[in-house]
Amino acid sequence: MTEKRKDILTQCLRGAGQVFFMENALTGALFLVAIAYASYAGENWTTTIGAVIGLVVATLTARFLECDEESVTSGLFGFNGVLVGIAIPTFISASPELWFYIVIGSAMSTVVTAALGAMITKSWGIPGSTGPFVLTGWLLVAGAYTFGALEVSGDRPELVSDYVQGVATIPSNLELVQIFFRNIGQVFLLGNEISGAIILVGIFIASRPAGVAAALGSVIAMATAIVLRADPHSVIQGLYGFSAVLTAMAVGVVFLKTSAKVVVYALLATIVTVFLQGSYDVLTSPLGLPSFTAPYVVTMYLFIAPKKLLAPHPHRAVENHLVTESTS
Amino acid sequence: MTEKRKDILTQCLRGAGQVFFMENALTGALFLVAIAYASYAGENWTTTIGAVIGLVVATLTARFLECDEESVTSGLFGFNGVLVGIAIPTFISASPELWFYIVIGSAMSTVVTAALGAMITKSWGIPGSTGPFVLTGWLLVAGAYTFGALEVSGDRPELVSDYVQGVATIPSNLELVQIFFRNIGQVFLLGNEISGAIILVGIFIASRPAGVAAALGSVIAMATAIVLRADPHSVIQGLYGFSAVLTAMAVGVVFLKTSAKVVVYALLATIVTVFLQGSYDVLTSPLGLPSFTAPYVVTMYLFIAPKKLLAPHPHRAVENHLVTESTS
Amino acid sequence: MTEKRKDILTQCLRGAGQVFFMENALTGALFLVAIAYASYAGENWTTTIGAVIGLVVATLTARFLECDEESVTSGLFGFNGVLVGIAIPTFISASPELWFYIVIGSAMSTVVTAALGAMITKSWGIPGSTGPFVLTGWLLVAGAYTFGALEVSGDRPELVSDYVQGVATIPSNLELVQIFFRNIGQVFLLGNEISGAIILVGIFIASRPAGVAAALGSVIAMATAIVLRADPHSVIQGLYGFSAVLTAMAVGVVFLKTSAKVVVYALLATIVTVFLQGSYDVLTSPLGLPSFTAPYVVTMYLFIAPKKLLAPHPHRAVENHLVTESTS
Repeated sequence: MTEKRKDILTQCLRGAGQVFFMENALTGALFLVAIAYASYAGENWTTTIGAVIGLVVATLTARFLECDEESVTSGLFGFNGVLVGIAIPTFISASPELWFYIVIGSAMSTVVTAALGAMITKSWGIPGSTGPFVLTGWLLVAGAYTFGALEVSGDRPELVSDYVQGVATIPSNLELVQIFFRNIGQVFLLGNEISGAIILVGIFIASRPAGVAAALGSVIAMATAIVLRADPHSVIQGLYGFSAVLTAMAVGVVFLKTSAKVVVYALLATIVTVFLQGSYDVLTSPLGLPSFTAPYVVTMYLFIAPKKLLAPHPHRAVENHLVTESTS
Repeated sequence: MTEKRKDILTQCLRGAGQVFFMENALTGALFLVAIAYASYAGENWTTTIGAVIGLVVATLTARFLECDEESVTSGLFGFNGVLVGIAIPTFISASPELWFYIVIGSAMSTVVTAALGAMITKSWGIPGSTGPFVLTGWLLVAGAYTFGALEVSGDRPELVSDYVQGVATIPSNLELVQIFFRNIGQVFLLGNEISGAIILVGIFIASRPAGVAAALGSVIAMATAIVLRADPHSVIQGLYGFSAVLTAMAVGVVFLKTSAKVVVYALLATIVTVFLQGSYDVLTSPLGLPSFTAPYVVTMYLFIAPKKLLAPHPHRAVENHLVTESTS
Repeated sequence: MTEKRKDILTQCLRGAGQVFFMENALTGALFLVAIAYASYAGENWTTTIGAVIGLVVATLTARFLECDEESVTSGLFGFNGVLVGIAIPTFISASPELWFYIVIGSAMSTVVTAALGAMITKSWGIPGSTGPFVLTGWLLVAGAYTFGALEVSGDRPELVSDYVQGVATIPSNLELVQIFFRNIGQVFLLGNEISGAIILVGIFIASRPAGVAAALGSVIAMATAIVLRADPHSVIQGLYGFSAVLTAMAVGVVFLKTSAKVVVYALLATIVTVFLQGSYDVLTSPLGLPSFTAPYVVTMYLFIAPKKLLAPHPHRAVENHLVTESTS
């Protein structure tokens, strides 16, 4: 294998690992195993094939566009592509046009990643994280409804008024264990507890504190969802936990230096993410869209944005406005 | 009473006052009286209790997070919390879980306030104002639909196609007076003209020009809504005026230095806000959400953003793009 | 004719031309001819009258607000106004209040243009382009549903679940020619192939590369929409092509310096725009809103934002966060 090919392989594996913030090729490889296991168990390989295509296309697009080399090498341009590649075949039936859709969509995820880097990271120090996946995924699924060559196979849209509220049920012990691991697996859209366990092992291999944060995030999300009596079917599928797992890791360990105050802050952020999981289900269902990791993305952006010494604007005249004289 | 407790009390009262841009504890106290009066008249004290909880929790969260001290002292971290605390029990039935929801939501409003300060204020000199309340309130109400422990008691969602357009009715003189004061009271979600009058007194105590702007904003909004024949039921409740009152104050007096040109500009902004009140009702109703002060927030952001000497990008090559050679 | 009046006339004509990025009064005059021709053919002159009002009001508002003089002279404050002025009578029936709505809406488009210039152009070098039109147009059409004095005459809102997917039909040769020109005419909301041809001539007069990009954009959009089997009725009206035409021009010629790599980049952007045309139809139809040029605006913002040397945030601690100690 030539040096260049090995480079690309490493970049892609790291890209898979970066979905959970881990720049580690072995971790990334384990994540791909988790995806493949779920395909095997569900007898549907389109998600695994899509994942690989998305990862490779997104990474190669970043190289073609000559994006920041260090970032490409770290896998930072691959992790949104792999998520696009899994998500699209999860919600759209396989067809020749689907693969065209995935290739263009994965290349688009790289452009969106570069755009967010130039916007929210440059100006406000906010990491784009899986925001490009959420935006690209929403646009692609929405668009598919209008194209005869693409059939949206997921749930049909629901109105808020159709919403069935959760009844009070305490999950059994076995279910609690399933929820714990599915909360992790669903970050890769995998409702499979074995896949979730493999992923958690992958995280621990790369970073013990990150693994602890992921596990705690899963437990806090589970408790919050049960206390507020979210729809049990969704809770058991891990759908109320995966965004919260990412928030707990991002706010508690990855983007802030862990301390007592940061732990309290991350706890608040994790609970808020569970609230927002409910919100986004309500906001996106009428449009026939899944919420993807939007609850995590929005929470994380809001919790990472505040910086020392920056104040809200006081209630007095702004400087240098178009239609006013200078106030000084 | 110790010095520290007195500090917190003052900060909270100023926080209430800042809903109408007034850093004045007496004004804030009058606003709380207005809220309590509406609770008394409507025989429902959950909004008053929620208001106090939201105000205190948001302010204490800002202290815990060591947000900019001057801003905390001015009440700038309290006014979004008090609005969250009134809004949530207005739209969600009381239950033990509701108070948990309000406490977390109020703390969240402080984080959002700090985030907007670091984003739109730092970069563009745009005040966050009640934007954090609108965002937090929307997410909390939307989320409540999915949680069995929280019952949304407000209006059910409507589709655009269900929209009943206003018939031509000229309100009576008594109704005009009611509308005038309710346009002010509804900023605190109070459809009560006595509460509106108490609030207007509070504003005049702190600033005469602000009081005049509030009164004029209410009149302009009323006239515009009647001319365009908005739904009379909503107009009489003051729902077409409260955002416009805030816009008139913000653009005409608070964030721009008053002058003849600024008055014209504020008049345009106030009329636009009434248009946007219609828009946001249409945009948020299908999602089962109230529009809150979004028409004010969006109008104000757009009208405060323009700065002297800044031009739109001309239709020629941008500098330093990823995929192009340097153009110089 | 006085010098000043001649100035305003030139500024307005250039404003019309700037809809297709052309600072050329003759081109702008031809565009107005194209609009008038469609009015003549459709026996409905409200759109032409609206276009002129929108153009003049937006330009005069920019002069009143003392916006950047060079930009006003170039017509950069007129092109969103002309689009507002055509769009509103296209979707709302004529009435005395309609003209009030258009005048305020056109003035608003100027404020939004100045706001975007101070925000996305200043911070990120992203041109506002027709973003102000899309935002203003959406808000105005949405608002009209709630006002008895304004009757929305366009299509009623549809739900995603009502969506009729396109069947496989290959348009005839005549239809292909119609689509080619209507893809251009629809930028001005004109489903008329003669108008489209006049516009294309106007573009070629001002710039040959821009004309070629417009023509190629139309062809690529047509091919993509047919391959993905979009709704044939919409495709034949030119509704899947007009945003793509703008993207091809903007990314391929106007905002980036043309090169082999830029051509590939523009091809990707153009295909993405067709996908997003589908997406925005799905996202805005349930709200009873047309998508306007949103697919172009969003694609262009995302593709123009990435800058050399700017990287996404790596997955490690952010600097200077409110709640963390300094990491250095």
